[in-house]
Amino acid sequence: MRFDRVWLNARLATLGGNDLGIIESGAVASKDGLIAFAGPMQDLPTGWDAAGRIDCEGRWITPGLIDCHTHLVYGGDRAHEFELRLKGASYEEIARAGGGILSTVKATRAASEDELVASALPRLDHLIAEGCTTVEIKSGYGLDLESETRSLRAARRLTDTRPISVTTTFLGAHALPPEANGDKDAFIDKVCDQMLPVLAREGLADAVDAFCEGIAFSPEQVARVFEAARTHRLKIKLHADQLSNLNGAKLAADYGALSADHLEYTDVDGAVAMAKAGTVAVLLPGAFYMLRETQLPPIAAFREAGTHMALATDCNPGTSPMTSLLLTMNMGATLFRLTVEECIAGVTREAARALGKLDEIGTLEPGKFCDLAIWEIERPAELVYRIGFNPLHARIWRGQ
Amino acid sequence: MRFDRVWLNARLATLGGNDLGIIESGAVASKDGLIAFAGPMQDLPTGWDAAGRIDCEGRWITPGLIDCHTHLVYGGDRAHEFELRLKGASYEEIARAGGGILSTVKATRAASEDELVASALPRLDHLIAEGCTTVEIKSGYGLDLESETRSLRAARRLTDTRPISVTTTFLGAHALPPEANGDKDAFIDKVCDQMLPVLAREGLADAVDAFCEGIAFSPEQVARVFEAARTHRLKIKLHADQLSNLNGAKLAADYGALSADHLEYTDVDGAVAMAKAGTVAVLLPGAFYMLRETQLPPIAAFREAGTHMALATDCNPGTSPMTSLLLTMNMGATLFRLTVEECIAGVTREAARALGKLDEIGTLEPGKFCDLAIWEIERPAELVYRIGFNPLHARIWRGQ
Ligand SMILES: [Zn+2]
Ligand SMILES: [Zn+2]
Repeated sequence: MRFDRVWLNARLATLGGNDLGIIESGAVASKDGLIAFAGPMQDLPTGWDAAGRIDCEGRWITPGLIDCHTHLVYGGDRAHEFELRLKGASYEEIARAGGGILSTVKATRAASEDELVASALPRLDHLIAEGCTTVEIKSGYGLDLESETRSLRAARRLTDTRPISVTTTFLGAHALPPEANGDKDAFIDKVCDQMLPVLAREGLADAVDAFCEGIAFSPEQVARVFEAARTHRLKIKLHADQLSNLNGAKLAADYGALSADHLEYTDVDGAVAMAKAGTVAVLLPGAFYMLRETQLPPIAAFREAGTHMALATDCNPGTSPMTSLLLTMNMGATLFRLTVEECIAGVTREAARALGKLDEIGTLEPGKFCDLAIWEIERPAELVYRIGFNPLHARIWRGQ
Repeated sequence: MRFDRVWLNARLATLGGNDLGIIESGAVASKDGLIAFAGPMQDLPTGWDAAGRIDCEGRWITPGLIDCHTHLVYGGDRAHEFELRLKGASYEEIARAGGGILSTVKATRAASEDELVASALPRLDHLIAEGCTTVEIKSGYGLDLESETRSLRAARRLTDTRPISVTTTFLGAHALPPEANGDKDAFIDKVCDQMLPVLAREGLADAVDAFCEGIAFSPEQVARVFEAARTHRLKIKLHADQLSNLNGAKLAADYGALSADHLEYTDVDGAVAMAKAGTVAVLLPGAFYMLRETQLPPIAAFREAGTHMALATDCNPGTSPMTSLLLTMNMGATLFRLTVEECIAGVTREAARALGKLDEIGTLEPGKFCDLAIWEIERPAELVYRIGFNPLHARIWRGQ
């Protein structure tokens, strides 16, 4: 057996099965960008050979990290709004100063595709520097066909200059644009009839998402978006139950969604419905932290029901300007009391599941892409325990 | 006038005076490691010359960041304890598994000076990577003369291999070592009569600190430590009012302490006493976050009284394994509702004040050390607003 590269003398957290899948004295081998072997060194096939051999000197290898919920591509920033808020400015004053989500819509619409790419790259680079090998990116700051198209194209183009996989999600039903004049139903018509079919045809979206909330769209409006997604054979995700319980988790499960995300106000019925449907609970502690939320997502109910839990940055300019999956894990543990195992699985195996990509990424198993993170740590818990520290030793994407 | 180096076309936050001290189209010049000029470019002396000229292309320059409260030097880590706690282990179970502060004392005592240096360097490097140019390091995990000496020597030695200033603080009265058999008064005798005089004589400590708390030492015991510090002309700091109000802030102020730190339970009287004494309130949001504390330090009282407020990481293995001043600023804003200006001043000017070094560092003013952080940002608020992102462009320590 001739491999391309073999990483030797490593400790592996394969994430295969339902735990960390720890293997001491392990090895990983790549061939044509895929994992050809991952297991105890002594189980390497006899007579193996490789073009490259790397001695890991006892370092840990995990699957490359996966950020399964971001809004990484947008124009402008909201630092000034953040500053005003801390000075005690009211929402009205901030709106008058050009703040709020519509300020991001305005800046995104004003940005060229090149500008959207350029402003997203430093954020992407920070994720990459911490071992991230796959990132999901949502649109939703364009809110018209042309700007949504441009945003999704920019997201896809990030892979031209960076060794990372990007999956894209069309989030047209994110907020109501000013030109809609308050008519949410008419805007949902546009999302379903004008935007979604074009984006699906052009292959710009892997999935469709919506924001189901009093301040955004009703379950009925979201259901119409989901029906359109089904028609166009796009996968489904949902921003659900973040600020109140509209039974968004149940709605997502009913449509067989890949994931429902946020979920602070989800009840036991929602958790059970998600478990039955295989819909992953994507928890976003960065937004919880930034909004100083006190309502915790129903972790115990998810555990009891067997709902899979993932973690993501929710990187966005308004409620989570965060670009660290390591810190996301720490917040998952500190704020949500997730275990170390749940946190690490949440940014690897379960994040892959939340993207419908568990057959390709998320664990160290033969046949999957050889996306690895190699860590200068003594035990996996260090990835979760430290705050604002990056022990990444090396990062491998598709075997390189 | 001939300078060594001049940074041109910069936007400055000088932190001179009581605000950010913003100067558009600014310049900074160094000579012999000191700031020779900081102001509007047009005010550079006519006929100036320099060996090196750096075009900052509009980037922002702030004073180098200062971490004025850390326990950076220690043996071992507490990742395993963190993991067990998340699994629901009781304090007893954790103690049996070798957890708690005494596990760090044991590991620190077992570590050689070289090992203490080696294990602290990655943590220091993370601070440096974010523009930190001065760090305070406390002892307090040795708890006997030999181990405290070794810890402080290791702290001083960090400057042998890294371009950074270190100030050291003797924190003998941190916890009671096992061999003290519960006799706190006898241990305080040792701290005052055996350890402190030797460390002072050897020049290993710039200041003396203590932990004033029910689980640590009483105000009376702390006062004895302060008396000894006074005798040996060492400056004073205090871990005060973190878990309960023992009037530690008032005690520190009465002794003219440089700072009182933590302060979640400090009352208005304490805040006023600190303001009158010029004792800085060093706020430590990382520990607040990690402990999921809900009692906020009395920020309004500090503002009202005019108490100076600094921010620091409290980097330590038990309650704040944090090595990011940028994240500390974000937590100061998000958790404590400090303004952007307070956060930035808190890790520059006020942190310098908390170390008694405001005449040397902390602002961009002629005569101070030329310690600079140069940032790839559009406005200072970005340093506080982002979470897990590092926009440092360059870092200068003593002009280099
Ligand atoms: Zn989101
Ligand atoms: Zn401390």
